[in-house]
Amino acid sequence: MTIHDLVEQHSATLQDAIRANSTREFFAHWPEPPSGKIYGETANADGEAAFKKQLNTSFEGLLQRGATAQVGEEESPWGFSLGVTYRFTPVQTLIEQATNAQRSWQELTARERAAVLIEALERASKRFFEIGYATMHTTGQGFVMAFQSSGPHGFDRALESVALGVTAQETFASNVQWSKPMGKSAVTISKHYRMIPKGVNLVIGCTTFPVWNTTPGMFAGLVTGNSVIVKPHPKAVLPIAIVVAELQHVLQTVGLDPHVVQLAVDSSQKPLTTELLEHPAVRIVDYTGGPTFGAVVQSVAQQTGKIAFTETAGVNCVILDSADNLDAILDNLAFSLCLYSGQMCTAPQNIFIPKQGMMVGGSPVAAAEVKARLIERIDALVNNEKAGPGLLGTIQNPATLSRVDEARALGLPQLRDSGSVVHAGFDGARSASPLVLEATSNQSDIYEREWFGPIAFVIETETFVDAVDRAARSARMHGALSTLVYTTNDGNATLAEEAMVAAGAPIAFNFDSFVWVNQSAAFSDFHGTGANPAGTASFADLQFLTSRFNVVGVRKQAVA
Amino acid sequence: MTIHDLVEQHSATLQDAIRANSTREFFAHWPEPPSGKIYGETANADGEAAFKKQLNTSFEGLLQRGATAQVGEEESPWGFSLGVTYRFTPVQTLIEQATNAQRSWQELTARERAAVLIEALERASKRFFEIGYATMHTTGQGFVMAFQSSGPHGFDRALESVALGVTAQETFASNVQWSKPMGKSAVTISKHYRMIPKGVNLVIGCTTFPVWNTTPGMFAGLVTGNSVIVKPHPKAVLPIAIVVAELQHVLQTVGLDPHVVQLAVDSSQKPLTTELLEHPAVRIVDYTGGPTFGAVVQSVAQQTGKIAFTETAGVNCVILDSADNLDAILDNLAFSLCLYSGQMCTAPQNIFIPKQGMMVGGSPVAAAEVKARLIERIDALVNNEKAGPGLLGTIQNPATLSRVDEARALGLPQLRDSGSVVHAGFDGARSASPLVLEATSNQSDIYEREWFGPIAFVIETETFVDAVDRAARSARMHGALSTLVYTTNDGNATLAEEAMVAAGAPIAFNFDSFVWVNQSAAFSDFHGTGANPAGTASFADLQFLTSRFNVVGVRKQAVA
Repeated sequence: MTIHDLVEQHSATLQDAIRANSTREFFAHWPEPPSGKIYGETANADGEAAFKKQLNTSFEGLLQRGATAQVGEEESPWGFSLGVTYRFTPVQTLIEQATNAQRSWQELTARERAAVLIEALERASKRFFEIGYATMHTTGQGFVMAFQSSGPHGFDRALESVALGVTAQETFASNVQWSKPMGKSAVTISKHYRMIPKGVNLVIGCTTFPVWNTTPGMFAGLVTGNSVIVKPHPKAVLPIAIVVAELQHVLQTVGLDPHVVQLAVDSSQKPLTTELLEHPAVRIVDYTGGPTFGAVVQSVAQQTGKIAFTETAGVNCVILDSADNLDAILDNLAFSLCLYSGQMCTAPQNIFIPKQGMMVGGSPVAAAEVKARLIERIDALVNNEKAGPGLLGTIQNPATLSRVDEARALGLPQLRDSGSVVHAGFDGARSASPLVLEATSNQSDIYEREWFGPIAFVIETETFVDAVDRAARSARMHGALSTLVYTTNDGNATLAEEAMVAAGAPIAFNFDSFVWVNQSAAFSDFHGTGANPAGTASFADLQFLTSRFNVVGVRKQAVA
Repeated sequence: MTIHDLVEQHSATLQDAIRANSTREFFAHWPEPPSGKIYGETANADGEAAFKKQLNTSFEGLLQRGATAQVGEEESPWGFSLGVTYRFTPVQTLIEQATNAQRSWQELTARERAAVLIEALERASKRFFEIGYATMHTTGQGFVMAFQSSGPHGFDRALESVALGVTAQETFASNVQWSKPMGKSAVTISKHYRMIPKGVNLVIGCTTFPVWNTTPGMFAGLVTGNSVIVKPHPKAVLPIAIVVAELQHVLQTVGLDPHVVQLAVDSSQKPLTTELLEHPAVRIVDYTGGPTFGAVVQSVAQQTGKIAFTETAGVNCVILDSADNLDAILDNLAFSLCLYSGQMCTAPQNIFIPKQGMMVGGSPVAAAEVKARLIERIDALVNNEKAGPGLLGTIQNPATLSRVDEARALGLPQLRDSGSVVHAGFDGARSASPLVLEATSNQSDIYEREWFGPIAFVIETETFVDAVDRAARSARMHGALSTLVYTTNDGNATLAEEAMVAAGAPIAFNFDSFVWVNQSAAFSDFHGTGANPAGTASFADLQFLTSRFNVVGVRKQAVA
């Protein structure tokens, strides 16, 4: 297998992805249903078996050298320790290996790199079920969501970055005979434009989406010729370790240095993050995680001239104004509140409703009734024995449970209390159904904080305009990764759109079916705008790629 | 005249520019010769008359409001005061007007903005000769160079930014009906992607290239929907004031707010730069100028999360190894050293020559002879009564003359002393021909500083490889905007190319005709790489455009 073979083999996939990025039409290279009909009848059982076989053993899939110890501390939120250990590689070794490996990697064309990366994604996709179980038991997501987020959806985000990287690097010709007319003759210069990567690209992962939030930066860094060091959160290593391992094997198979991508596993006791972040060879940093360390990332990057793409936290708002079918929209909203128990950076938190209530099908419905029916719809999902537990999943971090207690202790009126969720077969699962509190509009000191987890506030406002003002102000000051507005009034829709767009926040209207505000689709929805305090990254706009490389010109006087 | 008319009218120009940006082939929308046959037989006389008419009067071309005083301190390096005064507008007024004006500007499509901008360039191009005289008498450039740099070349750089801005903003569709298959049905979402500018774009100009170094950032900011405030150096206002005035008039003519672009004229006594730079509404800063204030720009931008594109200073190296025709290459090099008396950021400073000399047509030529013949070629240009004075021009800043004295006082062996240049008709002209000193390779503390102006060092090195190492190290540590290597040895060429590209510096080989290393051609040569300490800007790579706007998604549930 040569790189040339891979370029041929994956050219249609690349072209499809390039086209989808441009048209923004629906495109998914990997089907999202975790179905035996698609992935093979034994795929689920095989994946689960592979995951179980890995438990309580050392992860041996990586090809990288220089390890000096074993570390591992993953705990399933479903109630057991994974017991997986990983090789620990010191920072200086990681950096040296990354720097060496980058030399030949950056000499490839963008399409050659893309082909190698797509091959790795294809190979790793054979392990979607194993990755799904690894994700379920690190993040606490229900299996279907875990499969989708770390499998097809996360991989489509990777492919999106790869395709956009090719587009960005092919915007300019790489060679030209430049011929300037000079009266009757001409002077000719042979020009060559060389794309050079900025340097080592550090990608710092999070616990809740260890693949989905890592692949965009990781593959953006790689396709533009940088070496990448993936620094997963020590509590969520296994899903991305499998992806890195498959990529290292493909690199070696085509004769490249597998250290083009490395895994920097560390421990809570001895974290590597700051040392990596501050290393002068690291020129690009992708970070997903809490805003406190996000501020450190930004600050170090700013002081040292590094490029930093962050996605930290936002306070996402919903505004209820009017609808044709109240149950349909409340079902959609309730689903968004329940999905993975609010542990998505895009999950709604603050639900504004004008005090005079909503107009539904032309008739007024009192605010109290809207609230009551919203809680009914949440209850219906939580109490759905078949679908509820998988939808809610478990709680990744014990601190999130504490935050539910903290919210409860605020003393606000409870529209719905949080409770534990029965997960059959997982007696030790950590769970919490949504807590819904009522706040008054002047309690912005409470509701304009991010309450990460299954915590929502319903807030009555004077008017729709008042709600829009509050949502826009909140997005501007505290960031937002989503906004959801229900209105059948065109004037109100325009007003909300203008206000939120001006605040740099994305906005969605009237979702009432099988699309939810907390999901963003690769190749079509930009995840994050980079235009508000929720972060500087947008998966994947042009900046996300073009900031990772420079163009250096080489000019040669052509021989007459 | 409507914007729609302009879109039609300028679509061919825009398409030509978009194509040239992509192919990097020779393209010039405005012819570079200051010729009556092209621009009209009376164009030169009319332009000179218009310039002279402006002297000792108030500049009344701007449409912007809110001025509170008159300022003006331009002095011609050719020996007289311009006496032109400009309206002084306070920072808060500038910012408010910019913010208001941006609202409707950002609602236009990229192509609409491009059409308005091209119209303004076309109208201003009717004043190329006037701009040329204004440039000559602020920068000290000879007239031909002043005409070209602030006229056709500077305008082509503007058009390059406009065209690349359209490319960047049209990478993604702006609307799509996204339809996701769901078994037998589908869910459809109407999506709209809104490009939003980052905010007010401040463009800080320099004294030596008040148009050429201002138009790239100015038009990049404008085409991406930002309002722009042009803050020229108080010693070089008039050339860019004419451009801003023409643009304001076109904006007003098509019904837009002329404050989309404003001129912030200040004075040395009461500079506005820091106040503008630090204003929170300013989100993008373009800066050309000295490295000391450049560091302030970077620091303020980093602390406040602004985007900053800088071009400060570099130390540009030449390496002499081998050639077919020694006089041809030394003529080219001598021209580059003389052009505008070394006051270009791309001008060569350090000339490395291996101690064993050069190989010329297969025969060795001693280092001493190469040096002597280089000085001969410089003398031939300096003493050419017809071409010499225009080529050398005058010295913009008295500090540059002092720097020549400072260099002379280093006590290094002089290969050529600097002297004044006779400029017929301009008795008070400030001039200095090239000072060429000899340094030893271990005097890097001297020659690795930037000696802006007509100051060059010839440095013998042990070997060619030694010279390459020094040039690459210097580029990495002190920045470089050009590198020029003369070698007929393919192995040496490859070695030099790899070393300089790795250092992030552009490189040119064997220039021996009518292309010079200090010139970079719009649509083909990237000016600056952004990959070394000479600055973060590259005119115009994709980052230069994509960092100026964000994409915000608007999603609407489609009615079934």
